[in-house]
Amino acid sequence: MRKANEEAVRRLMSADPVLVDCRPAHEVLPGLSRNTFLHAGPPIAFEDMCPPMQGAVYCAMMNEGFAETPEEAREKALAGVVTFEPCHGYGAVGPMTGLTTWSMPMWVVEDRNTHRRSFANLSEGVGVGLRFGDYSPETLKRLTWLAEVFAPVMSKILREMGGIDLAPMMAQGLAMGDELHMRNHAGTALFVKNYGWRIAAAAPEHAEEILKFIGVGHDQFFLNIAMAANKLAADMADGVPGSSLVTAIARNGVEVGIRISGLPGRWFTGPAPEVKGLYFPGFTAADANRDIGDSAIMETGGFGGCAMATAPAIVKFLGADGVHVARETTDAMYRITLAEHPRYQIPALDFRGVPCGIDCAKVVETGITPVLNTAIASNRAGQKMVGAGMSVLPMEPFAKALLALAEELGI
Amino acid sequence: MRKANEEAVRRLMSADPVLVDCRPAHEVLPGLSRNTFLHAGPPIAFEDMCPPMQGAVYCAMMNEGFAETPEEAREKALAGVVTFEPCHGYGAVGPMTGLTTWSMPMWVVEDRNTHRRSFANLSEGVGVGLRFGDYSPETLKRLTWLAEVFAPVMSKILREMGGIDLAPMMAQGLAMGDELHMRNHAGTALFVKNYGWRIAAAAPEHAEEILKFIGVGHDQFFLNIAMAANKLAADMADGVPGSSLVTAIARNGVEVGIRISGLPGRWFTGPAPEVKGLYFPGFTAADANRDIGDSAIMETGGFGGCAMATAPAIVKFLGADGVHVARETTDAMYRITLAEHPRYQIPALDFRGVPCGIDCAKVVETGITPVLNTAIASNRAGQKMVGAGMSVLPMEPFAKALLALAEELGI
Repeated sequence: MRKANEEAVRRLMSADPVLVDCRPAHEVLPGLSRNTFLHAGPPIAFEDMCPPMQGAVYCAMMNEGFAETPEEAREKALAGVVTFEPCHGYGAVGPMTGLTTWSMPMWVVEDRNTHRRSFANLSEGVGVGLRFGDYSPETLKRLTWLAEVFAPVMSKILREMGGIDLAPMMAQGLAMGDELHMRNHAGTALFVKNYGWRIAAAAPEHAEEILKFIGVGHDQFFLNIAMAANKLAADMADGVPGSSLVTAIARNGVEVGIRISGLPGRWFTGPAPEVKGLYFPGFTAADANRDIGDSAIMETGGFGGCAMATAPAIVKFLGADGVHVARETTDAMYRITLAEHPRYQIPALDFRGVPCGIDCAKVVETGITPVLNTAIASNRAGQKMVGAGMSVLPMEPFAKALLALAEELGI
Repeated sequence: MRKANEEAVRRLMSADPVLVDCRPAHEVLPGLSRNTFLHAGPPIAFEDMCPPMQGAVYCAMMNEGFAETPEEAREKALAGVVTFEPCHGYGAVGPMTGLTTWSMPMWVVEDRNTHRRSFANLSEGVGVGLRFGDYSPETLKRLTWLAEVFAPVMSKILREMGGIDLAPMMAQGLAMGDELHMRNHAGTALFVKNYGWRIAAAAPEHAEEILKFIGVGHDQFFLNIAMAANKLAADMADGVPGSSLVTAIARNGVEVGIRISGLPGRWFTGPAPEVKGLYFPGFTAADANRDIGDSAIMETGGFGGCAMATAPAIVKFLGADGVHVARETTDAMYRITLAEHPRYQIPALDFRGVPCGIDCAKVVETGITPVLNTAIASNRAGQKMVGAGMSVLPMEPFAKALLALAEELGI
């Protein structure tokens, strides 16, 4: 198992992600059908979904022309008109509800050496959106704009320049106080700084609206791109026989599921945790859904909670009890990870690499479970983000996964 | 003196800088004549200037039409065709050689409450430029472009939006690992992120070149703006009778001069220090000029060396011996400053305010002199930046200033 884990984490850290394109899901997700709806987290039936995920289903139904109203969408979903599968099964990840369907544009991230690809849907901006379970005309209009205006321009510039090297941007983000999960101020600003001129050159007629969309009040724009990069790394580490390396952590708002390298494709689940955090004005813990989203792929790759020591400014946003929490969280994550990533460093820790490659066995052994930095969705459909905080995963999925691995290995 | 210093530092911290315009120097610098050439640091005669400052004079001479060649420029300078004065005397600051003349565009920063104004010339991009003493056709061409294309667009968007609030941008910069003197990655990226769309809207025909100019390899773009903001704060603190607060630290490449609040307009000088730092490939300490530039206005305001604890990533660029140097430098600066700035905080120090308001008396008392983060100019004219590092000021100007203040107060 030690050798298997060494190999798995080596593969994880060998990923050299390049953002190469931005294309409709049906063009790039292998085998996606018109009536396959992808969602965040482990598998779940429509009836069992939390309200924001059901709200996102209504939105996607209307966006794809299956329904005209949320009521009609609900009926069709209950009638089994579409099938639901995790994003993770299609090489993709989506924050919060993660709803991803046929026409939605996807970031395409490719490994420079193996040309393996991973995908993530696009950030819709702050607050209201499909990903939080909203299905208002505003949200639908934005999805159309993303598909018809934004994505084609992104595709054009990415093809023109032969892709964007993501590792240096993520490393620079860490040096600028992003942990890259709940803080992507730097990644987002660097995207506009580095490539804004290409947008102006490629699409002068849309440059103002595109630069405004990314530039104004949209600090998490870079998250989805970084998620695709980390999905790539995780998928590259998957399938090493005997390895207890965690290759996915994902929540559907009801359950959290993990996957491990040695048992590819299998989900091990437990109850999705409640998030401890800070609520926006007008909201309290009573408005909060349980933890939701594929964005924990960031922690899977060594970012987010793992890299929190590099992002002291985030503690206020997450309602943490002082800056010491950032350092302590990263310190704890070093105890359950297999390596320190040589390319992704924390300057404040004398350029030590982020704790990378969560080991299911170490989690069980130490009793320390991964800590996720996360947004908090409303527990009702048709709402927006209500806060942000930290969630501590339950032991259950890790214990289950380790037992299953032991069984597989005949121990 | 204690009361005077309290009042002076209160004024320093009361500055609420707004970037309101970008105009030619002759329009905004009170009393600037065509043949007044402003330079960094305390007063100096042309003959005594270091080679890079003389090189910048040649460049400015050619740029203003006084000469066609560097040789002709040198003759005219020696013949006294123009007079030389410090930028500081005109409410202005300029990095490195700081050469500022009639036609050059200036950032105009205004205090929201008092409407007092300060000024700085524009960043020319990385490496080669007037500010490092270059006078090549490339540098001259860029100065023309800045005046004819860039500045009018900046003026247009600044007037349209009623100015840019600089305090939140500087605070955000600190939270993103800028100390705002030798590291302005965040400030620069935020400028493009926040206002790139306004550039695209105001000047579609120039948006590509302007966004590329700021966006590509130009991480110090924001420095000049931040310098004007700190000059404003320093000037607001100036002229409090009896105060030993430092209101200017500036180097002309031969001498370093300081000014204190209680003795407005007087310079106290000592030898400009040698910079300890890291040289770019192909250069060594033998190529280095002594410390030069008005950019130490950043330390005067609590940034740069004072705020280094927030910028652990900078230590490698400055050739410092580990991240501990960043923390130790800020700690030392707390010992010689009068206050902690409530708006400019260091998240890593649990949001403690930057050490702000260097007290000449504390410098003499503790024996600790201010530490400046700085670029290193070549010791020849017509060259580019050769490295970056840290310079520790000599005690001499502080001792002189304190003696003069004691004399003034009849102590």
